[in-house]
Amino acid sequence: MNTKEKALALHDEWRGKIEIACRCPMETAEDLTMAYTPGVAEPCLKIAADTSLSYIYTRRWNTVAVITDGTAVLGLGDIGAEAAMPVMEGKCALFKSLAGVDAIPLCVRSKDVDEIVRTIELLCGSFGGINLEDISAPRCFEIERRLKQVCDIPVFHDDQHGTAVVVVAALNNALKLAGKKAEDIRVAISGAGASAQAVSQLLTSFGVQDILHSDSKGAIYDGRPGMDPERAGLARVTNRRMIKGGLADIMKGADVFIGLSAAGLVNADMVRGMAESPIVFSMANPTPEIMPDEAFAAGAFIVGTGRSDFANQINNVLAFPGIFRGALDARASDINEEMKLAAAMALADFISEDELRPERILPAVLQPGVSDAVARAVSRAAIRG
Amino acid sequence: MNTKEKALALHDEWRGKIEIACRCPMETAEDLTMAYTPGVAEPCLKIAADTSLSYIYTRRWNTVAVITDGTAVLGLGDIGAEAAMPVMEGKCALFKSLAGVDAIPLCVRSKDVDEIVRTIELLCGSFGGINLEDISAPRCFEIERRLKQVCDIPVFHDDQHGTAVVVVAALNNALKLAGKKAEDIRVAISGAGASAQAVSQLLTSFGVQDILHSDSKGAIYDGRPGMDPERAGLARVTNRRMIKGGLADIMKGADVFIGLSAAGLVNADMVRGMAESPIVFSMANPTPEIMPDEAFAAGAFIVGTGRSDFANQINNVLAFPGIFRGALDARASDINEEMKLAAAMALADFISEDELRPERILPAVLQPGVSDAVARAVSRAAIRG
Repeated sequence: MNTKEKALALHDEWRGKIEIACRCPMETAEDLTMAYTPGVAEPCLKIAADTSLSYIYTRRWNTVAVITDGTAVLGLGDIGAEAAMPVMEGKCALFKSLAGVDAIPLCVRSKDVDEIVRTIELLCGSFGGINLEDISAPRCFEIERRLKQVCDIPVFHDDQHGTAVVVVAALNNALKLAGKKAEDIRVAISGAGASAQAVSQLLTSFGVQDILHSDSKGAIYDGRPGMDPERAGLARVTNRRMIKGGLADIMKGADVFIGLSAAGLVNADMVRGMAESPIVFSMANPTPEIMPDEAFAAGAFIVGTGRSDFANQINNVLAFPGIFRGALDARASDINEEMKLAAAMALADFISEDELRPERILPAVLQPGVSDAVARAVSRAAIRG
Repeated sequence: MNTKEKALALHDEWRGKIEIACRCPMETAEDLTMAYTPGVAEPCLKIAADTSLSYIYTRRWNTVAVITDGTAVLGLGDIGAEAAMPVMEGKCALFKSLAGVDAIPLCVRSKDVDEIVRTIELLCGSFGGINLEDISAPRCFEIERRLKQVCDIPVFHDDQHGTAVVVVAALNNALKLAGKKAEDIRVAISGAGASAQAVSQLLTSFGVQDILHSDSKGAIYDGRPGMDPERAGLARVTNRRMIKGGLADIMKGADVFIGLSAAGLVNADMVRGMAESPIVFSMANPTPEIMPDEAFAAGAFIVGTGRSDFANQINNVLAFPGIFRGALDARASDINEEMKLAAAMALADFISEDELRPERILPAVLQPGVSDAVARAVSRAAIRG
């Protein structure tokens, strides 16, 4: 059996990747008296008097909702709410196994921003955090922005910010090896969608001052006709030298290439045109913008991809479980820029100076201890903040 | 420690009565490939092509949402979404321990019927069934009615229909002992709220032809001024002899009293005025309409209450886990009158003719095998229907 057949057979066998387990005994009449009626009235009354006690007497302190509308699932696009559920369940299984977080998958049968926001807002008393997932751009920006305003718990669109955290971690370590500083480098990003915008923003917080984006219409620059409001905003804060043209033009002289776009967009010449010791994060899935062997042949110093079969897998599984663990532990009301940056630095520091090599800039996905380290850093940043 | 203190201390210790457990391994890169990317794409695509496969490749086949707006929680009234969560978690723990159902607690921060309906409708692709819980009347009627129209999965307001199923089961066995038939008896019901209306409806399906209700304003009769639409509907199909007056008046000559109202509304004289071998289900919680010893002293033949410290506890824990187990097993799109009646009969038949005694008309709550028996009957009825 190939991977597809095997994965399908396993899903058929599992019949769901997560389930509910009981934490209280339910064997005797006495158990029922304590966990259900009449005993349960007492914690109910305590919470009615002080809502914050829901973090003591219920599972809220450890519970995150993983919510999608099914519009941007993996590389599959808009496949609908029910069809997104296998991804959400997988994510919930990772939350539990990597960080002990109880994550509940919810698929919303609507593509209307107002409806999605209102649905999640009305449910947020049931959870300690909201992980938005696989929602298409530009809707995901507005949904996240509005939810952050109306919810009193952390809201985090993982496709954006989880990716940004891992990219910044990888870049931090790659720059150490290349002997470069964030404030001196030029970064060319192929893509201007949800994850590219979040990466751009966190790179700026990290200290990078020269960032350029391109999309299917070429370089993004201030005043380019026909851009949506998000791209226009991006154009205002990037590409200060107003470079026009295509991806090859923005990559010219760049120290770092970050691909969040599509297979095969980068060729050897484009890598050859980069600055000394080029860092190439070619993250299109499943086929990168340029394959690692080709990038190395063209002079790349460090190459990362989204794939597990090459060195330096840049995958947000490294980030999201620990980020939510840390936010829940600190009972944070938000996951802010400082917390994301703290997560990135904890992830980078997980690789000691001794271990650090061009083919090992990040810990392996599922490596024990990663989520704990991220969680501690995020929790500290939340409490400081 | 008394019960209240002990229950509170236990809730503090549990910090949540349910949690998420993984059903798939997440230890190795291969595990990640199968349960997450890229393997997960295959079940996603299958479900995108045929939504019904969500019952094969995800946990939907075994998952029920337990949803409240926190407006009618236990006897505590409108205590809000977060404060209702301990009850919802308790219910979810019972679903799992008694029937293997994975139940997810959701508290909606709205009292607006349209919003509650829309919120649940948008989420119903994530579940195999919806258990509504502790929603105040008359809103609960409209919410359930509209959800049954828009959802393609079973919707069941347990406070109504779970109670009705257990009452009919208890009545079936009580009538056997009293040597009476459903079609010959007169039933007086104290209460006209959500559970009372559902009990009335299922009693009719069971064959009872003479039912009377009273509420705080006395006997319910067709044309009584100032009734809401639900009570007016109840008045049209009950009390054919147009009896007016108070609870004492509707109990006169009744074979069965069903109390779904408040403590102390019934006195010994009212029981004495009933027909021969009076059956008294005095279910107000925590203090019944009349206490069992007083009812027996006044000539009651059989007495049931909602309490665990008296014989014949009439508690919907006997019904809801098996009802949903059966509905899920049959992949029913509804829980209809036939399925509820089948559940009641299975519950009644769980007590064999040998065991049947006036102080044992129902199995004990948590008695092993009850949910299985109910589930089998419900599943058969669903498939027949």
